[in-house]
Amino acid sequence: MFQMQNPLLLFVTDLNQCVLIQEQVRLSVMEQENLSVVLHAQGDLRLEHRPVPEPGPNDVVLQMHSVGICGSDVHYWQHGRIGDFVLTKPMVLGHEASGRVVKVGSAVRHLDVGDRVAIEPGVPRDMDEFVKGGRYNLSPTIFFCATPPDNGNLCRYYKHNANYCYKLPDNVTFEEGALIEPLSVGIHACRRAGVTLGSTVLICGAGPIGLVCLLVAKAMGASQAVITDLTAERLTMAKDLGADFQLTVKKSDRPQDLAKSVEDMLGGQPHITIECTGAESCIQTAIYATRSGGVVVLVGLGADMASVPLINAAVREVDIRGVFRYCNTWPMAISMLASGSVNIKPLVTHRFPLEQAVQAFETTRQCLGIKVMLKCDQSDQNP
Amino acid sequence: MFQMQNPLLLFVTDLNQCVLIQEQVRLSVMEQENLSVVLHAQGDLRLEHRPVPEPGPNDVVLQMHSVGICGSDVHYWQHGRIGDFVLTKPMVLGHEASGRVVKVGSAVRHLDVGDRVAIEPGVPRDMDEFVKGGRYNLSPTIFFCATPPDNGNLCRYYKHNANYCYKLPDNVTFEEGALIEPLSVGIHACRRAGVTLGSTVLICGAGPIGLVCLLVAKAMGASQAVITDLTAERLTMAKDLGADFQLTVKKSDRPQDLAKSVEDMLGGQPHITIECTGAESCIQTAIYATRSGGVVVLVGLGADMASVPLINAAVREVDIRGVFRYCNTWPMAISMLASGSVNIKPLVTHRFPLEQAVQAFETTRQCLGIKVMLKCDQSDQNP
Amino acid sequence: MFQMQNPLLLFVTDLNQCVLIQEQVRLSVMEQENLSVVLHAQGDLRLEHRPVPEPGPNDVVLQMHSVGICGSDVHYWQHGRIGDFVLTKPMVLGHEASGRVVKVGSAVRHLDVGDRVAIEPGVPRDMDEFVKGGRYNLSPTIFFCATPPDNGNLCRYYKHNANYCYKLPDNVTFEEGALIEPLSVGIHACRRAGVTLGSTVLICGAGPIGLVCLLVAKAMGASQAVITDLTAERLTMAKDLGADFQLTVKKSDRPQDLAKSVEDMLGGQPHITIECTGAESCIQTAIYATRSGGVVVLVGLGADMASVPLINAAVREVDIRGVFRYCNTWPMAISMLASGSVNIKPLVTHRFPLEQAVQAFETTRQCLGIKVMLKCDQSDQNP
Amino acid sequence: MFQMQNPLLLFVTDLNQCVLIQEQVRLSVMEQENLSVVLHAQGDLRLEHRPVPEPGPNDVVLQMHSVGICGSDVHYWQHGRIGDFVLTKPMVLGHEASGRVVKVGSAVRHLDVGDRVAIEPGVPRDMDEFVKGGRYNLSPTIFFCATPPDNGNLCRYYKHNANYCYKLPDNVTFEEGALIEPLSVGIHACRRAGVTLGSTVLICGAGPIGLVCLLVAKAMGASQAVITDLTAERLTMAKDLGADFQLTVKKSDRPQDLAKSVEDMLGGQPHITIECTGAESCIQTAIYATRSGGVVVLVGLGADMASVPLINAAVREVDIRGVFRYCNTWPMAISMLASGSVNIKPLVTHRFPLEQAVQAFETTRQCLGIKVMLKCDQSDQNP
Repeated sequence: MFQMQNPLLLFVTDLNQCVLIQEQVRLSVMEQENLSVVLHAQGDLRLEHRPVPEPGPNDVVLQMHSVGICGSDVHYWQHGRIGDFVLTKPMVLGHEASGRVVKVGSAVRHLDVGDRVAIEPGVPRDMDEFVKGGRYNLSPTIFFCATPPDNGNLCRYYKHNANYCYKLPDNVTFEEGALIEPLSVGIHACRRAGVTLGSTVLICGAGPIGLVCLLVAKAMGASQAVITDLTAERLTMAKDLGADFQLTVKKSDRPQDLAKSVEDMLGGQPHITIECTGAESCIQTAIYATRSGGVVVLVGLGADMASVPLINAAVREVDIRGVFRYCNTWPMAISMLASGSVNIKPLVTHRFPLEQAVQAFETTRQCLGIKVMLKCDQSDQNP
Repeated sequence: MFQMQNPLLLFVTDLNQCVLIQEQVRLSVMEQENLSVVLHAQGDLRLEHRPVPEPGPNDVVLQMHSVGICGSDVHYWQHGRIGDFVLTKPMVLGHEASGRVVKVGSAVRHLDVGDRVAIEPGVPRDMDEFVKGGRYNLSPTIFFCATPPDNGNLCRYYKHNANYCYKLPDNVTFEEGALIEPLSVGIHACRRAGVTLGSTVLICGAGPIGLVCLLVAKAMGASQAVITDLTAERLTMAKDLGADFQLTVKKSDRPQDLAKSVEDMLGGQPHITIECTGAESCIQTAIYATRSGGVVVLVGLGADMASVPLINAAVREVDIRGVFRYCNTWPMAISMLASGSVNIKPLVTHRFPLEQAVQAFETTRQCLGIKVMLKCDQSDQNP
Repeated sequence: MFQMQNPLLLFVTDLNQCVLIQEQVRLSVMEQENLSVVLHAQGDLRLEHRPVPEPGPNDVVLQMHSVGICGSDVHYWQHGRIGDFVLTKPMVLGHEASGRVVKVGSAVRHLDVGDRVAIEPGVPRDMDEFVKGGRYNLSPTIFFCATPPDNGNLCRYYKHNANYCYKLPDNVTFEEGALIEPLSVGIHACRRAGVTLGSTVLICGAGPIGLVCLLVAKAMGASQAVITDLTAERLTMAKDLGADFQLTVKKSDRPQDLAKSVEDMLGGQPHITIECTGAESCIQTAIYATRSGGVVVLVGLGADMASVPLINAAVREVDIRGVFRYCNTWPMAISMLASGSVNIKPLVTHRFPLEQAVQAFETTRQCLGIKVMLKCDQSDQNP
Repeated sequence: MFQMQNPLLLFVTDLNQCVLIQEQVRLSVMEQENLSVVLHAQGDLRLEHRPVPEPGPNDVVLQMHSVGICGSDVHYWQHGRIGDFVLTKPMVLGHEASGRVVKVGSAVRHLDVGDRVAIEPGVPRDMDEFVKGGRYNLSPTIFFCATPPDNGNLCRYYKHNANYCYKLPDNVTFEEGALIEPLSVGIHACRRAGVTLGSTVLICGAGPIGLVCLLVAKAMGASQAVITDLTAERLTMAKDLGADFQLTVKKSDRPQDLAKSVEDMLGGQPHITIECTGAESCIQTAIYATRSGGVVVLVGLGADMASVPLINAAVREVDIRGVFRYCNTWPMAISMLASGSVNIKPLVTHRFPLEQAVQAFETTRQCLGIKVMLKCDQSDQNP
């Protein structure tokens, strides 16, 4: 919720004017610094000042409020690359984000200064066949925050295409807005899986993505969800978030045996399996476990080549579908959050001010907690 | 195959045997009477004894427990027909039902004596293109309880194809089992509508079917639901069951105006409208109200010909889809009820023993409450 | 980026340069006139000179080659409006078009001067929910050629967003390129209908749109198609284009009787009916005729309100779907034409040079032939 | 086409009676012998007499006419098993079949003695969730001709569930009727792939199944099809049947290179790949080759485990779908054949009388030609 905090404002005559004045103060401050979390090279993460951006005609400039740290941010930091995406020049990290509009491009009609927005980090550059067809996440030339060479939004001020900024209702917090990004992964995965009323679902992996898949699957009507993980603590969180069954797995477990355990728990094979680990043995388990005619969705990414029981899947018509990010999820996610259909607030376990970004990244690297949130607005560090 | 034996067992040694004896006592009673609610002609509803049925190889005989009264039962009673279905000889009414297995046909493998089951009233007779294609509700030769000339199950003992009897888990009551029938209308409607995460839904009519559509839509992830009705009482029930907005309508309201009110409530047109009244003006409202690219599902049935703004629907690609009963809903409904994903118990507002069937029908005819349940098992009148 | 240079090049050394010179000569001519077919008001159609347009960064300027006359062009001429679209200022007509690129905007990468292209007349202006979701035809703010207030392309030189201009392979003629527009209506209708291998299809109306629906339905694998019309001549053309059965109808025929005739011809009800007349009685026939579980697609537009047997459709789960223009059809249409999967050339029955546009419009108004093509390039009036 | 051949019939007064008498002669002959092709054990194929079957109430007895030899028949002969299906007692081979009705079960209403029918070899035994849902091919208890322990129909007289016998129109030959079985594999694969108008398709393998996939893909509107094989002869046949491009591959070719060759041929990656070889390297090629957002369908079966670039598929949302036999294909296949939409006659390259079954199997084993047909009716060996 928005809260007035600047003590230097005097003689305001009404609340609207008050907001306006505050915005102007913001803007004057804004000229002077734009603290940003920049990855210069593998292992070389720096906090540094960058210029405050100006909006193009279709852009807005945002004062960033909350930005979650994603496993991919940490992966770039630790390895300098993810697959074919290689860091070749300094890049601002961060893509799970929300903020407040401080400048509006000349052609923008649906947003105003002061609007609280969630940011969809992918913005298509070309109107190609994928964009025209509604699957813009597959557009090969898409801009995407914090995927080399595109800068992310872990900073004070950030410019973004206004069409991919979505206004937040008053009852949705900035942090919920930032969490729409990981939530979107879950929405896209569950939608690609075809989760519907009465679906039984197996989720492999109880990290942040496994947990959002769990939340979304239940919100879409899944009657029963089993979730697996190597660590019991994560499964406890999963239970709190609505998992019907938890299965602690060991690396030595045979996939067929795990599949049998899942079947026994549910009283039948799950219609859908959402694989969030990327581990080869888990993909194998996913295939063996899923009911004939069902779907395995691959969310976790592992080695380039995987040895899998493809025949087992094929002759039982178990479809194998991947997901690449997401598309068309923000409006529905906001709608869900506003209506209280899903509660993602418990996912945030740690908060750090932007100035302590390195410490925050270290916390994520150590897999402490679920989601670490960086607070970019010095005057409002609330959720 | 189950076989009648000497009912006078003595020297009971364990509990299982005790249950067996109890079942056999049931069966000995069963030979003697099968009180049934029989519609002889328009307005001529009688309680009379009919023979206890014997199962064919694929059948089970059930001791009926709970049977809900449907608007169609009352309609046959009052008018002797629904559309082309005309009562030409006495027919047992009732098709929202659950009971306990007391005899098992020789070829039945998945059910045993004592099993508590919900009954799907439609049983295909021919393996035609519709059945092979998974839309068996459209099979023109389907058997359907209490649709002339097929008898229903408002009686003490009833024979049904075992493949269309579904075992209830311990935590699902007989009444919930009986309510799966109206719930299935809601499931089928919402599935045909494509309700999914974040859908906004308008439901026209807050009678029993409108209410189950509401429950199902929310369970499938609808973020917001508006429900309309002529009477404020029904809307209060709808609010209790989860409607986000209630709109009391008058018969004189213009459809375009109502559509505008709905848009204002939701902050945008609904993706989906589920029309449960059959009234021409409501169908018009449904079309005007629905968002471009959305869906209107027709559940309510009215006059043969309706005057509707078809062009408005067509040029905005608002699809109009009907529903005829349902198919493939019982397993998912049981799964939902067992997991607590949906609570339909509040729908039952009245209960009568089978002997008071006429009074129960009169209660339904007067639209008192939501769902009237007849209790057919003299030894167990619990929910 | 294309730049205008000195047009007086001498000493041509190779053929490519020759083409360049030819283009530049074209451009020098182009500066001087842009003959356009302009509708000033209901009944007031004029040929007049307009300025030659300059491309914006994402545009190309085209020298128009072939432009078909659509029923909607004639309707605007005769009535000054279609539904809510009202002519309030002079508008260039024409939207079934192809041409050659003569200028390329600064940001355009996939087209070059000299490219032969087909023009998709609808260009979304806003990246709204419909565009993001791949149904850009439903975007309420879309630009659309020759729909007030947007100008069409019945002229010598025309500017269009390059993303909606599609390069034609050498073996696809300009006229085929222009015909992609009506063909797209057929593609969109058949796709919305779900025509697939072995579908049986009823098409009501054998005008240009009925005929393209026929061609597309057969190309998508329809095994049998019945087509109806009031006039025998049109049905003869339909037969030549592949209709399996023709049914001449009279305005006095009862819809149920026509439905029965169709069923008798096919030996069963059609899976799909594509209604291209807009007449109320034909919509009724469409519903009665279609098989349970099938689809009626409404392509023809008639009166705002239509009286239809909605219950008949609903209880047999016959879906009613409208189409509004089309989306995502050009690439597949070009692919079909290039491979010879569909032959649309016979649809062109009349050709006029642009200067005789009024005569061409009069020909269309009188429903003479199927498709009238205007030839806009004085130096090349070939198909 | 049916032809009178029995010379012993005298004094017939009309053709119907003539047919009846001939049927009775057939039946009297029928009592005495039923030559059958029986696999006793791996490598032990015998021609022997078996009893002529009697129909149950829902069956028909057929005089077999044409039965194609499938690779799976040969595989059982050579290896005694396919995966988990193991021959443990003598089994009649054959499942690509057509014949004439000679006896009709008491409950059969849609077939009469004399009807020419194509046989769908899979008949569900249980009304389980897969059958109710329209995917009866996935029913684990399904009867299937010539899959242990169920007998096939490579014999003179064969009994089959009448609901899975489909009447052939006069213009569809018995051999076409028999070929509906392999054609159905192609239909099911192309349907699961979502082939539609303008699809570009890669087919790996030009054996009988690859060829039917080619025929079906083109009939469903595919604009361009590339087909690959190790042998040039098969590709020549593919070219004759409509392949747009042929690619001869060597076992040493790198999958990525083959994928690039396919892209170059088509001028873009194919939307769909249908993998009919089962070879690991071909599955890899299929994944690399397919366009983002496209589909790979696995028809060929290879080793239990396959090493595949699953990440490549996942991050480009290339779905991997298997097929198991088929469902709901016979009516549409008959419709296609009757309308001439597809011509499968060229697939038959060899014919043998039933008595020469061993020689026919040997021909198939050596991969000579495309499809070997056994002629089971001594009095009519026509196609």
